[in-house]
Formats: sequence, C-alpha cells, structure tokens
Amino acid sequence: MSSASVKDVSSLEFSGVVGSRGAFIKWIFSPKDGAPTFAMRLIKIEAGGTLPEHFHPWEHEIFILRGSGRVRIGENTYDVSEGNAVFIPPNLPHEYQALTEMLFICVIPNAGVPPEYR
Amino acid sequence: MSSASVKDVSSLEFSGVVGSRGAFIKWIFSPKDGAPTFAMRLIKIEAGGTLPEHFHPWEHEIFILRGSGRVRIGENTYDVSEGNAVFIPPNLPHEYQALTEMLFICVIPNAGVPPEYR
Repeated sequence: MSSASVKDVSSLEFSGVVGSRGAFIKWIFSPKDGAPTFAMRLIKIEAGGTLPEHFHPWEHEIFILRGSGRVRIGENTYDVSEGNAVFIPPNLPHEYQALTEMLFICVIPNAGVPPEYR
Repeated sequence: MSSASVKDVSSLEFSGVVGSRGAFIKWIFSPKDGAPTFAMRLIKIEAGGTLPEHFHPWEHEIFILRGSGRVRIGENTYDVSEGNAVFIPPNLPHEYQALTEMLFICVIPNAGVPPEYR
C-alpha cells in the first residue's frame, strides 16, 4: 500500500524541460510516490520562454498559479493568467508562450506515459 | 473526441460539501468536460471549518493555494500551508481542519468514484 506524503513544493528541485526555451519542471507526485492513477507536476516558464508545439496521447489538466501567457491548442490560441484552468485533450498539438513568468500545476495520467518521460 | 477548454475558475460556483462545517467545492474539470482519467476540483474551507473523517477507495493529490490547517491521514497529523502538496492514498481515513481560510486544488481519479458524487 502506498503511504501518505506531505511535501513543501518550494524545496523540490526544478529540471529543465528538454526542447523548451526557459521551461522547468518539478514532479510533485508520480508513480515513484505510489500515486496510482495520475501525476502532479509544477511547471515554470520564464518570461519570454516557450514550450514549443508537441502532442501525445495523454491529456493535461492545468491550473495557473501565477503569471500570464498564451496557450495554443489545435487551431485555437488562448490568453491565460493566474486563476485560469486549461484542459488539453489527448493527441491535440499544443504550445505555451509565457508573457510574464508563468507557474502552473499540470496533472497527467500515469497510463500511456513512457517511464523515461518522468 | 473531447474539446480543449479554458476556464476562469473564479467565475465557477461553489457548492457546500455535505457533512462538512464550512467546506465548499468547485468542479473545474470532470468527465462532464470530457476529462478521461481524473477530475480537478477547488476546495475552500473557512477558518475554523472542518471536513470530518471519511475514507474512500480513491486517492487525493492536493496542492494548497492559500491558508493553513491540519490534515490527519490515518494515524498521522500534518500542519499544512500554502505551497504544500499532500498525497492521500486510497482507503486511508482522513480529515481536514482549517486554521485560516484554506483554498486547495484536489485531484481525484474518475474510475471508482460514483457519478452521484460529482
């Protein structure tokens, strides 16, 4: 059985996101913590930074903690900022562009995500 | 296929949490939005409010946006505040007590959660 866990997220280390300009990620909870169904990450994109177009067979559910930027999902572009939530369905190409430093929670399922991705 | 969605979370309505004292919930993304695997909710507990002990066969992944309180999970009690993240495994009894008004993101899986719960 997996154990309860409380983390101070500010004490976790950021890693650079491969292929990005100025994007960093912390894994808060993942299968390594015994999380059975989905993983919670914190993503930071520096002002002017980008996470260029990509797509994958898993969805994102995002909550923006701070900052502002643009998210393109398929054919549509959305201006987003603190307090906005974003649902990106599986397989839709998407990209992020930060206008000010953006910080957001991004949740993904465990199933279908290659272990080397984590 | 489900569609992309961007929501201003502040514009969504809170509902009271049955059995709580001073706890309220907004469903941000759920199967109703086409979310395939997990649901994202925002929970508010007023200062002094409580969500009394309960348990269920699904897990929680929580990120605390604001406020402070205590979370008891099984035999352990944790002081939590803004920037903390909490993993509550399936089937462990847990309860929340807010010291100041708490606001947190709480993600649960879709599978195994009765539809009438949503």
